[in-house]
Amino acid sequence: MGKVLGVLGGMGPAATVAFLARVQALTPAEGDDDHIRMLIDLNPQVPHRHTRAVEAGETLGRMAASLRDAGAEILCMPCNTAHAHADAIRAAGLPFIDIIAETTRAAKADGARRIGVLATPGGEALYATALEASGCEIVRLEGEDRAAFMEAVFAVKRGDVGEGPRGVMRRLAAALVARGSQGVIGGCTEVPLLLGPDDVAVPFTDSAEVLAARCVTLCG
Amino acid sequence: MGKVLGVLGGMGPAATVAFLARVQALTPAEGDDDHIRMLIDLNPQVPHRHTRAVEAGETLGRMAASLRDAGAEILCMPCNTAHAHADAIRAAGLPFIDIIAETTRAAKADGARRIGVLATPGGEALYATALEASGCEIVRLEGEDRAAFMEAVFAVKRGDVGEGPRGVMRRLAAALVARGSQGVIGGCTEVPLLLGPDDVAVPFTDSAEVLAARCVTLCG
Repeated sequence: MGKVLGVLGGMGPAATVAFLARVQALTPAEGDDDHIRMLIDLNPQVPHRHTRAVEAGETLGRMAASLRDAGAEILCMPCNTAHAHADAIRAAGLPFIDIIAETTRAAKADGARRIGVLATPGGEALYATALEASGCEIVRLEGEDRAAFMEAVFAVKRGDVGEGPRGVMRRLAAALVARGSQGVIGGCTEVPLLLGPDDVAVPFTDSAEVLAARCVTLCG
Repeated sequence: MGKVLGVLGGMGPAATVAFLARVQALTPAEGDDDHIRMLIDLNPQVPHRHTRAVEAGETLGRMAASLRDAGAEILCMPCNTAHAHADAIRAAGLPFIDIIAETTRAAKADGARRIGVLATPGGEALYATALEASGCEIVRLEGEDRAAFMEAVFAVKRGDVGEGPRGVMRRLAAALVARGSQGVIGGCTEVPLLLGPDDVAVPFTDSAEVLAARCVTLCG
């Protein structure tokens, strides 16, 4: 019997649903019973993770405790940016699968040491710390590309996963490669709704995929 | 501020994720905040709804109470067959959106009175009661088509939504139309993963779509 996975979700809503589908796709299953039980708090009203950081941490801590009380045994959160509040979640006392740590480990597994990151400013800061601590160098989006990235993410949040934002995301990945990235991290769970491995000229590490795979390993 | 929607899910897992995506697709949203908060118990280990009916009812009752305790204000369950246990869910004391009642109402809205049903035997029995109580006649799958339907549903549960089971589901819908159905109900939440309105020669009422739309109306 596997473990019950608690999911702190809703940041954003479509990314969470795509993550749940990914967990199921990665689970070897012949029928319903073989799938992982998941308790999901899909909460699109978590206060803004930067501008209202204190309230965001309090909300995420309450969500984690509530998932624990409902029976979750392992926690995860398919949102990179919100991992700034990982300590508030860990306070619930359950194992918490850290998307930043898992993705960093996966991205450097094939030898890349100069790694581009597609992430929000908050997510990028977390990856900068993790990559540098593990002997890697981060390549960041520069100038107007930073705003273009956020516009593409907000397009997903509005429900637009069409060719417009897809083209932007391909261009941003190419810009990171042009500046010497040996690998690119999709460090925001909206990214894989716009970009796949075939769109990037170097190995692409999708944080949502890495997290889903780790959840299946630990809970399946 | 909308209401928190509690979702009793996992029956099956892929159908639940498709349902969540449907709720989001039907929600008018410019950003995360506009989406509905959902607490989801995606439990693929609910005991079999027929062969272990007593345990299934107890499990669903516990899931409903737990969602209520976690903050859900309205409950729904994107599984037609499991509505045999609706009373156990209603015992939690929250409003419960009944997929059978809502879908029956939607299917007869455009005047159809002889209505074909694509459902498991348990779901079909619920629709027979609901349709007959509202002055409609049910058209059931017959003979080997009944087993073929279940095989297509189990294909979805194995992760196969390919042309094989899709072709079967189109053929079954056509069989119901050939026997005089003026409308067809997709009375199993796996059906829309294989069949769309364009595949059916008469109006097609997808129970997952009807339930999602009702959830958005009541919780948005």
